[in-house]
Amino acid sequence: MSEFDFNEHSHRRYNPLTNSWVLCSPHRTKRPWQGQQETADNESLPSYDPSCYLCPGNRRAQGDTNPEYQNTFIFTNDFAAVKSDQPQFLHKPDGVRGECKVMCFSPKHNITVAEMSKDAIIPVIKAWIEVYRNSFSIPYINHVQIFENKGAIMGCSNPHPHCQIWCTESIPEEPTKELISMTKYYEKNKSCLLCDYVLLETLKLQDKPRIVCENDSFVCVTPFWAIWPYETMIIAKSHVKSLIELDGEKQLNDLADIIRRITCRYDNVFKCSFPYSMGIHQAPVDENDHSHDSHLHLHFYPALLRSPTVKKFLVGYEMLAEPQRDLTPEQAAETLRKCSEIHYKQK
Amino acid sequence: MSEFDFNEHSHRRYNPLTNSWVLCSPHRTKRPWQGQQETADNESLPSYDPSCYLCPGNRRAQGDTNPEYQNTFIFTNDFAAVKSDQPQFLHKPDGVRGECKVMCFSPKHNITVAEMSKDAIIPVIKAWIEVYRNSFSIPYINHVQIFENKGAIMGCSNPHPHCQIWCTESIPEEPTKELISMTKYYEKNKSCLLCDYVLLETLKLQDKPRIVCENDSFVCVTPFWAIWPYETMIIAKSHVKSLIELDGEKQLNDLADIIRRITCRYDNVFKCSFPYSMGIHQAPVDENDHSHDSHLHLHFYPALLRSPTVKKFLVGYEMLAEPQRDLTPEQAAETLRKCSEIHYKQK
Ligand SMILES: O=P(O)(O)O[C@H]1O[C@H](CO)[C@@H](O)[C@H](O)[C@H]1O
Ligand SMILES: O=P(O)(O)O[C@H]1O[C@H](CO)[C@@H](O)[C@H](O)[C@H]1O
Repeated sequence: MSEFDFNEHSHRRYNPLTNSWVLCSPHRTKRPWQGQQETADNESLPSYDPSCYLCPGNRRAQGDTNPEYQNTFIFTNDFAAVKSDQPQFLHKPDGVRGECKVMCFSPKHNITVAEMSKDAIIPVIKAWIEVYRNSFSIPYINHVQIFENKGAIMGCSNPHPHCQIWCTESIPEEPTKELISMTKYYEKNKSCLLCDYVLLETLKLQDKPRIVCENDSFVCVTPFWAIWPYETMIIAKSHVKSLIELDGEKQLNDLADIIRRITCRYDNVFKCSFPYSMGIHQAPVDENDHSHDSHLHLHFYPALLRSPTVKKFLVGYEMLAEPQRDLTPEQAAETLRKCSEIHYKQK
Repeated sequence: MSEFDFNEHSHRRYNPLTNSWVLCSPHRTKRPWQGQQETADNESLPSYDPSCYLCPGNRRAQGDTNPEYQNTFIFTNDFAAVKSDQPQFLHKPDGVRGECKVMCFSPKHNITVAEMSKDAIIPVIKAWIEVYRNSFSIPYINHVQIFENKGAIMGCSNPHPHCQIWCTESIPEEPTKELISMTKYYEKNKSCLLCDYVLLETLKLQDKPRIVCENDSFVCVTPFWAIWPYETMIIAKSHVKSLIELDGEKQLNDLADIIRRITCRYDNVFKCSFPYSMGIHQAPVDENDHSHDSHLHLHFYPALLRSPTVKKFLVGYEMLAEPQRDLTPEQAAETLRKCSEIHYKQK
């Protein structure tokens, strides 16, 4: 029998960040698809929509009116999953107080991060930093989760470019797993798991099989253990534990740069607005010292597999047994590397 | 401020089976939905489709012809995620050998389990038992995952009633989590976690808030820690660790009965074919003794939230932070209890 080939044979990969496994079946990309097709997200929208509750000057669900904002705008979610004013609950199961915010990236209804300039992304990052910083002084907030659902496939109900920020009393499941893994790794190796992973991907591996793009401060990789077909991570090259530790304009600039470049590449893969969920992982805003268990990074979980209308379904086996992926992360990185950093609509 | 109310206020619930948490925000059901709508699965299909690769007598992708089967029919998936004949890989990351089977529930193209009679479900269970039993003698198979993806929303590419059976060398992620939790619980309490949970739901709690239906051998509940809006579990009332331990015709009969009743109730919730992923968890088929860490149960993970066309999206916050649900499991159980066990199409 032939040699074992990672591009051909089924294998499992370990995710050291969440202490979990993914099943990788590269040959499976050959199977034809006869299942559900999504509607491609390429309708053209007006730059201002009078019926959009996120556009400047419009009225929202609870009657408030949006200001004529210039770049970003933040407000409390009118249908928040957690609230500050609920009665305290001291016994298990834990009551969870908190705040859910919505943040518009731009007054323009018909733009996405992928089409925004680096300079337009900088105010977005500054607004994230502000929310994160302010959360330290709110006693019932210990964790800040910034995330973006982009595209109808990802459950996003409004195409106006925006993210959400859910601030909670409890530290949620996924960040907790990462904190535990990072702590264990630090105790064993006296170094940071993600610092070491960055070194591995950027320096130790000669052919750099999983790097999509990089700049002085950040690298964007398809992690070895990626679940989604085109999943990537943006990781800070230096050991910064949160957005507020970014060292001045240079690192801010570099973060905006790499966000622009990866989201633009995504749109260019299938020449469509690429649906994804994105989220920022950084130190909790509680009273503990997170010098050794937190390292700023962003996860992108994009849904598409084969075309603008065929997504990857994480269903049956994935829900009941183990996530399964078709193409390898190295194959995905190669595709993403080949994509231009000039948006297909701007060409 | 008012008292803490589980039907009104945000709280977290602990899942002892997988050692994880879910955020529950009951008030959130009030929010309007303006996002993606699915296509309702209610087209009427012929009982035989000449282009279906699962119908009796038809040709499949690799050229094989299906027999004129009478109730169930099993074959090896033409596009298997794991295969028996790949080279062995001894180092990490683990190579994974195995087998992927497809099993048709019925020769009829246009039926689903929800519309099948109890007597028609019995041969399905017998076929599951057969595959499970035979796997013990295959050295490179240690785990058998039986699962069904039902409905296009769940990534199912063919409406012909069928399930899949992925048999693998490795014991996958989710069952591993359960094995670990069950072992820890047994070591601490000298009893089985699921035996104790069944006692709690069926006997200790007077108003039985989470029971949907039951018979002598099985109970169907919306588990306290459910993630999906109408998620349920069928749990054996006695401590059987796998399908082959079912005690004769009576327990077989009872399993068919409860599967029929819950799937029928699902279809009746929104008067549509209710999409879900279902899976059976039982003892691995390896060499270890699983008397204390395994207890036969089935998980149903249905996608719908509000109507035949509005599903629950487990996206941004769920992927990056923690699963979040809207209605409580107790509210879901109440809805399911109110649904008839006579299928809406048969009325
Ligand atoms: O093999 P199928 O049914 O075509 O494929 C479906 O189920 C598999 C197992 O849950 C998933 O990995 C696929 O993404 C899904 O489309
Ligand atoms: O608040 P939104 O954007 O309407 O809602 C969306 O994102 C939430 C957080 O990821 C999910 O819980 C919802 O299921 C999804 O529809």
